[in-house]
Amino acid sequence: MASLDAFFAPRTVAVVGASRDPAKIGHLVTKYLLESEARVYPVNPSAREILGRPCYPALESIPGEVDLAVLAVPAPATVEMVRECVKKGVRAIIAQASGFGETGEAGRRLETEIRDILSSVPGDRRPRLLGPNTLGVYVPRNRLDTTFTVRERSPRPGPGDIAFISQSGATAVCIMEAAASMGVGLSAFAGIGNKLDVDENELLDYFAADPHTRAIAFYLENFRDGRGFLERCRRITPRKPVVVLKAGRSASGMRAAALHTGSLAGSDRVVEGALRQVGAFRAYDEEELVDLARVLGQGRPLAGRRVAVLTTAGGLGVILTDLLESRDRGVGLELAPISEEGKARLRSALVPFASVHNPIDLTANSSNQHYADALRVLEEEEDVDAILCVMQFQSPYVDEALADLIIDRFHHGPKPMVVVTIGGELSWRGLRRLGEARVPVYPSLWRAVRATAALYQRGCYLARCTGVTAQGTAAAQLRPRAWEGGSCHV
Amino acid sequence: MASLDAFFAPRTVAVVGASRDPAKIGHLVTKYLLESEARVYPVNPSAREILGRPCYPALESIPGEVDLAVLAVPAPATVEMVRECVKKGVRAIIAQASGFGETGEAGRRLETEIRDILSSVPGDRRPRLLGPNTLGVYVPRNRLDTTFTVRERSPRPGPGDIAFISQSGATAVCIMEAAASMGVGLSAFAGIGNKLDVDENELLDYFAADPHTRAIAFYLENFRDGRGFLERCRRITPRKPVVVLKAGRSASGMRAAALHTGSLAGSDRVVEGALRQVGAFRAYDEEELVDLARVLGQGRPLAGRRVAVLTTAGGLGVILTDLLESRDRGVGLELAPISEEGKARLRSALVPFASVHNPIDLTANSSNQHYADALRVLEEEEDVDAILCVMQFQSPYVDEALADLIIDRFHHGPKPMVVVTIGGELSWRGLRRLGEARVPVYPSLWRAVRATAALYQRGCYLARCTGVTAQGTAAAQLRPRAWEGGSCHV
Repeated sequence: MASLDAFFAPRTVAVVGASRDPAKIGHLVTKYLLESEARVYPVNPSAREILGRPCYPALESIPGEVDLAVLAVPAPATVEMVRECVKKGVRAIIAQASGFGETGEAGRRLETEIRDILSSVPGDRRPRLLGPNTLGVYVPRNRLDTTFTVRERSPRPGPGDIAFISQSGATAVCIMEAAASMGVGLSAFAGIGNKLDVDENELLDYFAADPHTRAIAFYLENFRDGRGFLERCRRITPRKPVVVLKAGRSASGMRAAALHTGSLAGSDRVVEGALRQVGAFRAYDEEELVDLARVLGQGRPLAGRRVAVLTTAGGLGVILTDLLESRDRGVGLELAPISEEGKARLRSALVPFASVHNPIDLTANSSNQHYADALRVLEEEEDVDAILCVMQFQSPYVDEALADLIIDRFHHGPKPMVVVTIGGELSWRGLRRLGEARVPVYPSLWRAVRATAALYQRGCYLARCTGVTAQGTAAAQLRPRAWEGGSCHV
Repeated sequence: MASLDAFFAPRTVAVVGASRDPAKIGHLVTKYLLESEARVYPVNPSAREILGRPCYPALESIPGEVDLAVLAVPAPATVEMVRECVKKGVRAIIAQASGFGETGEAGRRLETEIRDILSSVPGDRRPRLLGPNTLGVYVPRNRLDTTFTVRERSPRPGPGDIAFISQSGATAVCIMEAAASMGVGLSAFAGIGNKLDVDENELLDYFAADPHTRAIAFYLENFRDGRGFLERCRRITPRKPVVVLKAGRSASGMRAAALHTGSLAGSDRVVEGALRQVGAFRAYDEEELVDLARVLGQGRPLAGRRVAVLTTAGGLGVILTDLLESRDRGVGLELAPISEEGKARLRSALVPFASVHNPIDLTANSSNQHYADALRVLEEEEDVDAILCVMQFQSPYVDEALADLIIDRFHHGPKPMVVVTIGGELSWRGLRRLGEARVPVYPSLWRAVRATAALYQRGCYLARCTGVTAQGTAAAQLRPRAWEGGSCHV
C-alpha cells in the first residue's frame, strides 16, 4: 500500500480519543468512520465499548495492522500518540488538534517534537502525517470521513471527480456544503492544516495519478515549496486540470493569512503569472474554485471560440451574447454562425416565432422535442465549437425529462456543452440532477459563460502543449486571443 | 385615480378573453386575478360563467367602471378590443398578445392602428396601454397578477421594496423566480413589451413617487427616449437608487436584441458613461441586477471605505479581505482598523483562539452570543464604516436565532451591514429568512463584496450631490477613489 493510500483507502483505522460523548469530536469521527469500508478500532483507556464496538486501551493493544490512526486528542497528547503510532507501525496519521504552530511559539515547539519523532524512524517504516490542525479526509466513494462537523448541520458532497485540498478546515466545510447543495461531488477531500509532513505538492502528485480524480482544486494560503508546485503543475496540467484559490493576495489578506494559518505568503504578482504559465487556473473566490474545477473536470476543451447559445427567453440570449462577446465584462468569445441549412432545419422543427439565428430562441412555448431537435441541429453544425444551453422549466410543454435529454447530449453528443438554468425550485432540482450526473450546470448566466471560457482556455493550452486541438485541428487554426493576451477576462 | 395607478391598484379589472380552458392564458389570468383585491369581470361572449364568476359577453355589458382591462386575445382581436375599451371608458389596458411590431411589417401595422385609436381620444379620457407583447403586471402586496406562467412551475416573489420593469417577459419570469427562491420581494413588476404607449420613462417616474418602492430595477434592450431616461435618473437617483441591466452591449447582442424585441439599441459606450454620470448603477447580468437593487434599496450608504469583516472561518475572512482590498479582482475598499479597546473587548468576549484583528474570526466554535458581542463591539468602533457579516450555521453553538439577531442588528444597529452565508440547506434557510426580512444577504463572498462596494459608491454619489455623507461627515473627507476613478471594480 503506497503511503498516501493509507489516508484515502485504509483497510483499518484507529480512532485515538474515541468517545461515547456525542458532543466530542472523537465520537463523531468514530461514528462516521463506522459507516466506511474500513475496519474501525476505537482507542480510549477509559471505555470498554464505543458505539457498539470493542474499545482498545491503547494503539499497541489492537490486534493486527493499523493503516490509519486518527488522533482526536488535544495538542500535547497528540505528540505522545504520534510516538505510539511509530511503535505500532501505523502507516498514516491524521492529527486533528489545533493549538500547534498557528498559535505561536509553544505550539511550534510541539510541532518540532513531532517532526523529531518522525525523522528518527527509518524512511520505509516512517508514518506519514496529515496536519496537525486539520479535519483530515473525506472520501465519498468509500464513505471514509474523518471531518467532524455534524452531518445533519453540514451535509457532505456525494461521489464525484474533483479532488479538493484545503489549508483551512472551516472554509473547506462551507465550500463542500455549497457544492453538495448543487449536486457537485468529490473524489476526495484532504485538509492539509499546518502541513507538518504531507503538503499540497505531494497531494497534487497523488491526485494526478488517482483514476477517480478528473480535476484538482486547492484552497491555499501559502505554498510550502512554490517552485515544486509549479513544476508539478507543468507536468500534470496537460493531463489533468488544476485550479488554485490562493488567498492572501492583498496586503491585509496576507496579514490575515499569517494570523489564520501562521503562514507567510509570497508576492502575489509572481504567483499570478507563474500559475498561468504552467497551465493552472487561478480562482478568486470560493464559487469560482468549484465552478472551474467542475467544468474543467467534466467538460471537453473547446477547439475554437465559436459558441452556439440555445435559450427559451430572448432576453437571456441577449445577455449571454453580451457576456460571451464583450471584452469588457465578458470573455471575448464569439457567437457561432449558423449555416443556411441549419437555419432551415431549425425553422421546420421549431415554432414559427422562434429565432433560428444564434442566440437560438425556442421561446417560452418550448418543448422537450424542440430542445432535442435544436441540439441535434447544433451538434451537426461545423462552425459550432460549443453549445451553451439554457435549461428552463417554465414552459408547460417541458418536463423533468428535459434534464435527462440534456445529460444524454452532454455525455454522448459530439460538442462540448455548458448548461445554465435560472429560476426557482424546478431549476434547482434540474441543477442538482445535472450536477449529480456530472454535467457542468450553473444558476447564473455569468458563471456559465465563465465556465465556457475556461474550457476554451483549456483547449488553447492543450493545443499549445500538443500542437493539435481537442478536435484534431492544427493549433495554428485557433485564435486564442483571450488566453494569449494575458488577460483571460474570466 | 392617476392613470398609472389603474395598472397597479385597480378597483375593477376586466379580463377580455377569459376562458374556462385551464390551458388558456385567459384562464390563468382570471384565476390569479380572482385572488387580488380588485373586483374581476371575466369577458367572453361564449361563456356564462368562468371560475364561479358571472361572465360578460362584452366590455360594454359590464355594469360600472372598469379601471383595468387585460386583453388576453390574439393580436388582430386586440385592436378591436382596444376600440371597445375606449368606448367603455376603461382607464388602463394591458395588451398581452404577441404578433405585433416584433414580428415585422404586418404587426407594425396593427400597432399603428392601436396608436390611431388611442390618439383619437381626448387626452383626459384616453386609456393608457401597457404592451403589446407583455405579461403585464404583478403586485405582490395586493396580489394583482396578470402574468400567465403557471404558478406551480413558476413561483412569484413576495412583497418587497424593489420595482422591476422589464422589456422581456420570459426573462423577467426567470429573474423573478430566482429572486423568489432567495426570499427577495418586489413592490411591483411591470412588463413594458413593445412600449406602444407606457414606456420605461413613465414607469421610472411612477415608481420614483411610489412609497412602496425603495429601488428601481430595469431590464432594457433599448431606450425609448434615452435623454429623457437620463434626465429622470439625475432627478430621481439622489432620492431613490436605479439599477439598469441594458442588454445589447456587444455587436451580436445588439443584433440579437433587434431580433428579439424589434428594438434598435444605441451605442453602448454612451450608455455606460451617461448612466454613471446620473448616478444610476449598471448591472451586467441578471444576478447583479437583483443583487444591486436589493442592497441599494435596503442597505444604508457607506460614509467611508473601511469595512469590518466578521467571520467564523479564517479562510473566508482572508478571501473577503482580498476581494475588498484588491483593485484587480476586487473593489478597492479597505479593512477597518480595530481600536485597542475594541480588541480588548473582543478578546474578553470571544474564545481564546478567536482572531480579534480585522477580519475578526469567531472560529468554528462560534455561538449566537459571540456574534452578538462582536457585532456590538464593531458597531461602537469609530473607524468602522460598514460590517460585512459571514453568517454560518455549522457550529453546534449557533442556531437559527442567529438569523433573527442579524436581522435585528441590520435594522436597528448604527452601521450599514451586508451579510453572506456559504453552505447547504441551513445557509439557504437563513438566506431566505433574511431575504424576507429585507436584509441584503448573498450566497457568495464576491456578491456580498460587490454589494458592499455598491453601498460605498452610493455613499460617494450622495455625498457629491449634497456635500454631506450619509453619516453627516463632509464629503471631502471621503476618499472615493473607486468611484471617481471611473472604474468601480464592481
